[in-house]
Amino acid sequence: MTYCVGLLLNEGMVLLSDTRTNAGLDNIATYRKMFHFEDPGERIITIVTAGSLSVTQTTIARLREAVEDKDATPDTSVILAPTMLKVAEIVGNALATVRREIDEKLSMAQGASATMIVAGQRKGGAMRMFLIYPEGNFIEATEDTPFLQIGEHKYGKPILDRVVKPTTSLSDAQKAVLLSMDSTLRSNLSVGMPLDLCVIQADECKIGTLRRIEAGDESFRNMSDAWSHALREGFSQITI
Amino acid sequence: MTYCVGLLLNEGMVLLSDTRTNAGLDNIATYRKMFHFEDPGERIITIVTAGSLSVTQTTIARLREAVEDKDATPDTSVILAPTMLKVAEIVGNALATVRREIDEKLSMAQGASATMIVAGQRKGGAMRMFLIYPEGNFIEATEDTPFLQIGEHKYGKPILDRVVKPTTSLSDAQKAVLLSMDSTLRSNLSVGMPLDLCVIQADECKIGTLRRIEAGDESFRNMSDAWSHALREGFSQITI
Repeated sequence: MTYCVGLLLNEGMVLLSDTRTNAGLDNIATYRKMFHFEDPGERIITIVTAGSLSVTQTTIARLREAVEDKDATPDTSVILAPTMLKVAEIVGNALATVRREIDEKLSMAQGASATMIVAGQRKGGAMRMFLIYPEGNFIEATEDTPFLQIGEHKYGKPILDRVVKPTTSLSDAQKAVLLSMDSTLRSNLSVGMPLDLCVIQADECKIGTLRRIEAGDESFRNMSDAWSHALREGFSQITI
Repeated sequence: MTYCVGLLLNEGMVLLSDTRTNAGLDNIATYRKMFHFEDPGERIITIVTAGSLSVTQTTIARLREAVEDKDATPDTSVILAPTMLKVAEIVGNALATVRREIDEKLSMAQGASATMIVAGQRKGGAMRMFLIYPEGNFIEATEDTPFLQIGEHKYGKPILDRVVKPTTSLSDAQKAVLLSMDSTLRSNLSVGMPLDLCVIQADECKIGTLRRIEAGDESFRNMSDAWSHALREGFSQITI
């Protein structure tokens, strides 16, 4: 399993992914699930992935190939695509194609699947964030729903529901996604450290902060402890 | 869907269930999911249910029939059963039988299923709480894991993880299950008010408190608001 979350805020975008993949509980590995396509100052696209590693790796590899292809066109390269909507379409089509190809090799029962969050901005355009479904269709984050989640999303949703708004600061947004991840890590063994955290400031069209948070990271543990403490304090003060 | 939770604590047991059932989003109804078998002072058994209404209703009806049968034996009646373990077996067998019967009437694709939490105490015995699976097997709450959940359990788990211990007071326990339910209500439309809350004090072998919390209940709303406020306060004080 996986947990990835992306926030689309007035000040910028924040994405967080875990790195655990597993084929059975006895076969666990660490793989990066966050990928960047960047032309600094001109365009930044960040993709986080959940689902079959064979599907997500192949999809990202094809997107990368298409960008590096000397015959790349605005219809095939996410770096040349005229709009973020077109980027979402390119990613969606690549994902759907790869999934179909791999599905054909597998029996129906094993069907491979994947979902992705695509976040980005091109110079002159707005920041946009999409959730791409296995079939290649997608939905977009909006003012009303400024966050998207893929993978094991339920444990970490209550905190996002309560604190994330478009006006949330990037600093609070980082706290929110890390606490959302913390709740998920506690409850699902198949979501695991290290974590990849990415912050993209509005209109900079480049990666702002990129941070890998290793297992045992002191600031993450302190934050987690402080949150547990705050929850228990708040809990003790409520009367029924 | 459904959300039910039961806590097994030193001071007693607390159970909470929602009441929403649905066959599609356009066919919603309210059904009680909490049932009691009581011989006050001698024995209390409370069952909360999740899953196909046809399965859970028939199972409870058969358990009730078996209790009222004038030929009831300790092998068939949960009121006569010598131990709580035997009660769990009777409920498990009834559930598995009903599920099999209904499954045979349905195609495989529609397969009906259900799970139950059975909590109780007989005079002279210990309080015990079991989660009964659709196949009739079961697990038991312990010191290490003093709560059991059925139905839509993920949204409401982080709060339980953080505040529930065997030493938790019955008053805090009621808060904990209500806040756990509140997080679930916010995230899953198929879990809905009113709620049924039951408190059983240790060694009393009878229902202590039984409370139905209707939609719009002021104390529940105040508690929910206070918790949102406490979460935001705690959140704002954490630094990363």
